[in-house]
Amino acid sequence: MKLPLEGVTVLEFSQYLAGPYAGLRLADLGARVIKIERPKYGDACRGLVTKNMISDGDSVLFHTINRNKDSFQANLKDANDVATVKKLAKSVDIITHNFRPGIMERLGLNYEVIKEVNPTIIYAEVSGYGAKGPWKDKPGQDLLAQSMSGLTWLSGNDNQPPMPFGIATADMICGTQLVQALCAALLRRKRKGIGAKIEVSLMESILDLQFEGLTAYLNTGKNLPERCASNNGHVYLGAPYGIYKTKDTYIALAMGKLSLLNEALKNEELAPYCEGDLYFTKRNEVKAIIASQLVSETTAYWCNKLDSVGFWHAPVFNYEQLTKSEVYTSLNMQISLERNGETIKTTRCPIRLNQQILSSNKSAPVLGETTERIKKEYKL
Amino acid sequence: MKLPLEGVTVLEFSQYLAGPYAGLRLADLGARVIKIERPKYGDACRGLVTKNMISDGDSVLFHTINRNKDSFQANLKDANDVATVKKLAKSVDIITHNFRPGIMERLGLNYEVIKEVNPTIIYAEVSGYGAKGPWKDKPGQDLLAQSMSGLTWLSGNDNQPPMPFGIATADMICGTQLVQALCAALLRRKRKGIGAKIEVSLMESILDLQFEGLTAYLNTGKNLPERCASNNGHVYLGAPYGIYKTKDTYIALAMGKLSLLNEALKNEELAPYCEGDLYFTKRNEVKAIIASQLVSETTAYWCNKLDSVGFWHAPVFNYEQLTKSEVYTSLNMQISLERNGETIKTTRCPIRLNQQILSSNKSAPVLGETTERIKKEYKL
Repeated sequence: MKLPLEGVTVLEFSQYLAGPYAGLRLADLGARVIKIERPKYGDACRGLVTKNMISDGDSVLFHTINRNKDSFQANLKDANDVATVKKLAKSVDIITHNFRPGIMERLGLNYEVIKEVNPTIIYAEVSGYGAKGPWKDKPGQDLLAQSMSGLTWLSGNDNQPPMPFGIATADMICGTQLVQALCAALLRRKRKGIGAKIEVSLMESILDLQFEGLTAYLNTGKNLPERCASNNGHVYLGAPYGIYKTKDTYIALAMGKLSLLNEALKNEELAPYCEGDLYFTKRNEVKAIIASQLVSETTAYWCNKLDSVGFWHAPVFNYEQLTKSEVYTSLNMQISLERNGETIKTTRCPIRLNQQILSSNKSAPVLGETTERIKKEYKL
Repeated sequence: MKLPLEGVTVLEFSQYLAGPYAGLRLADLGARVIKIERPKYGDACRGLVTKNMISDGDSVLFHTINRNKDSFQANLKDANDVATVKKLAKSVDIITHNFRPGIMERLGLNYEVIKEVNPTIIYAEVSGYGAKGPWKDKPGQDLLAQSMSGLTWLSGNDNQPPMPFGIATADMICGTQLVQALCAALLRRKRKGIGAKIEVSLMESILDLQFEGLTAYLNTGKNLPERCASNNGHVYLGAPYGIYKTKDTYIALAMGKLSLLNEALKNEELAPYCEGDLYFTKRNEVKAIIASQLVSETTAYWCNKLDSVGFWHAPVFNYEQLTKSEVYTSLNMQISLERNGETIKTTRCPIRLNQQILSSNKSAPVLGETTERIKKEYKL
C-alpha cells in the first residue's frame, strides 16, 4: 500500500509531547521523521521517566511517542553542527519545533532563514500561548493550559474542586491539529508550489476543544457552566447522562428519554420526572433517584434490562477489563516493538486506509542512531 | 491568502459531532463543505437543544460546529433525491458519513458504488467501534466510548468513582484524526491520482488519546493506574503535579523539582521529601503537606512566590476569568456570526497560517439554504 505521506521528510526539533505526537502521526501516514537531538540527552522526553518505566535506557513514554522515527544527533550550540542541520533542512519538506520564541532566530534556523535555502519549506511552531503577545514567554505546559482555559470546571461534581483531565489533553489536541495544518499545507504546496509557516499553541487548541462550552457560555448571558450535584457527565446535558454505581461495578448511561429509561427501571419515584424538560431542570433530583436504584443490582443485570428497551448504556472498564474485552481485541489496537532485545507493547495508529490498519514495527530510535546514515545519504 | 484546501468540495452526510467537527476544520482550511440534510429536521444536531440554547431555530451547538458550511436538502428515502445526490457525488472530492454499518449500502451510496462514478473519491466513515467485528452495531456515543476505554479511571482522586471527561472527548479527537486522514489522502490523490476509503472510530481514537496510559499499563506488569489520594493531576506523575486550593481560589502546579518548590514555600515538613524519588513514591503525603500550606494564602501571593524561584504554575480560571484575561483577548479567539439578525459568538480555528488567523464570518446554514444554488451550479 502506498502510504499517503510516502516521500515526505520531516525534521523534528520538537521535544516532549505535542510536536512529537504530530511527528508520530506523520510517520504513521508514511512520512520519514528525523528527530534532531542534542548529544547525551536528546529529546528531554527520553529522560522523563515516570514510575521507573524505562526500556533500553529511554522512558517508556519516549518509546510510545517516537516509534517509527529516525534520530540525528546535533549540538545546536556548535556552529558546525548548526551548519550541517541547515544543509539538511534544504532537502526536507517539513520542520517542527517547540523552542521558546527567539531561540530558532538566535540559531539562524528560523523560518525566514530556512525559506532562503528551501523556498517551499513548511515550517511549524508549537507554543504555549502563541509567538506574540504578552504571554509568549510563559511556560507552555499542559496542566497550566488546562487550568487557565476554564476546562477544569467541566468534570467532577458541583461540590468538588476544579478537576483537570487526567491526560495531557492540551498537548494531544494541539499535536493532532498540527498534523491537520501540515497535511493541508503539503497539499497546497503540491498544488500551488508554495510553502507555509504554521503556528499552533496549547491554549488555542484547548479553547477549540471547548467550543461547545465556550459558545454556550458566550451566548447565554455568560452563565457559568454548572456541574451536576452527582454523577456529572456533561455540564450542558440533563439526566441521566453520567456514570452510576451498581451493586458490583459501575454503568454509564448516555442521553436518552427518561420515559424510555423508566420502561426498564419501572421506578415510581422517577415517573413524575418523565415529562417536559424536568430531565434537565430537575436533573439533580432525577440523578439521585436513578443512583439510589441502580446501586441495588449488578451491572450485568442493568445492562440486560436496558438492552431490552434499547436505552444506550455501557459497562465502565478499567485497563484490565478493557484489554481483555472483545471490543479491544477485535480492533487489533495493540502492537509490539523490539529494540536491542527489549520489547515495548503500545497502541497503533487509529486511522484505517482502504480497510487496512496503518502499522509499522519500527521502534523509537536510539539517540543518534541514524546520524551517520543520514550524513551519507544527504552528503552532509 | 490562498487557503490550503481552496477548491476542495466535501459532501457531509455526517451528523452530530465527530464528522461535522471534521467538516468544520476542512471549511476553516478552505474547503467548501456541503451538508446533505433530510427534510424538516436536517442534521439531528439542529434539534439537540441543551439548556434552551437556541438561535434562529437551531441549537447553539449546531451553529458552533457547522459555521462556514452549505446545506443541501435531500430525502434519502426518495429514489429521485438519492439519484440527485449521487450525481452531485460525482463532482466532489470528499464524502463523510456516520451512518450505522449497512445504511449507505442500502441507499446505494457506499464507497464501491460512488467509486464507480468518481474513481478518485475520498470516502470516510465514522463509527463507534469500527465497521466490522462483534461491536459494529453497538451505539457509538461519546460517554459510552469513554467508559469502556478505561479513561474514566484517570481523573479525580483515588477515593472517587470513575470520572468521565466533561467534554465529548472521543468525538472531538476522532474528528481531528479524521481531518488528518482526509488531508493526507488528498495529498496522495494529487500525487498518485488515486482515491481512498478512510475509517475512524470513537473507540480507536480515544485509545490513541490514551497511548501514554495504555503503554504504561501494558509494560509494567499490568498494574492499574493509581490516582492520587488528593489533588490528582496525572496518574503517572509525582508531586506536586495538580491543582490546589488557596485562601481565595485555586492554583495549578506543574511538574518540577520539590527542592525548587520549597525555595518558595520554605516548608520544614516538606524538606525531607525533597530527596531521591520520594516526590513519586510518597506523593500522597507530599501533596497533603503542600495542600495544607497553600490554603493559608491567596493565589496571587503564591504566584508571586513561585515566580520568584521560577516554579511553573498558573491560576485556575473559570470561563468568566478566562474570557476577561489577557491570554484570551490577546489570542483573538472569539468570532461573531450573524444569521437572520441573530448573533452567535463562538471561537475560531486554532491554526495560524503565515501569521494570519484563519477566520470566516459565514454562519451555519439554514436547512436547505443552498439546495437550489447547488442544483443550478452542478446541473442536477
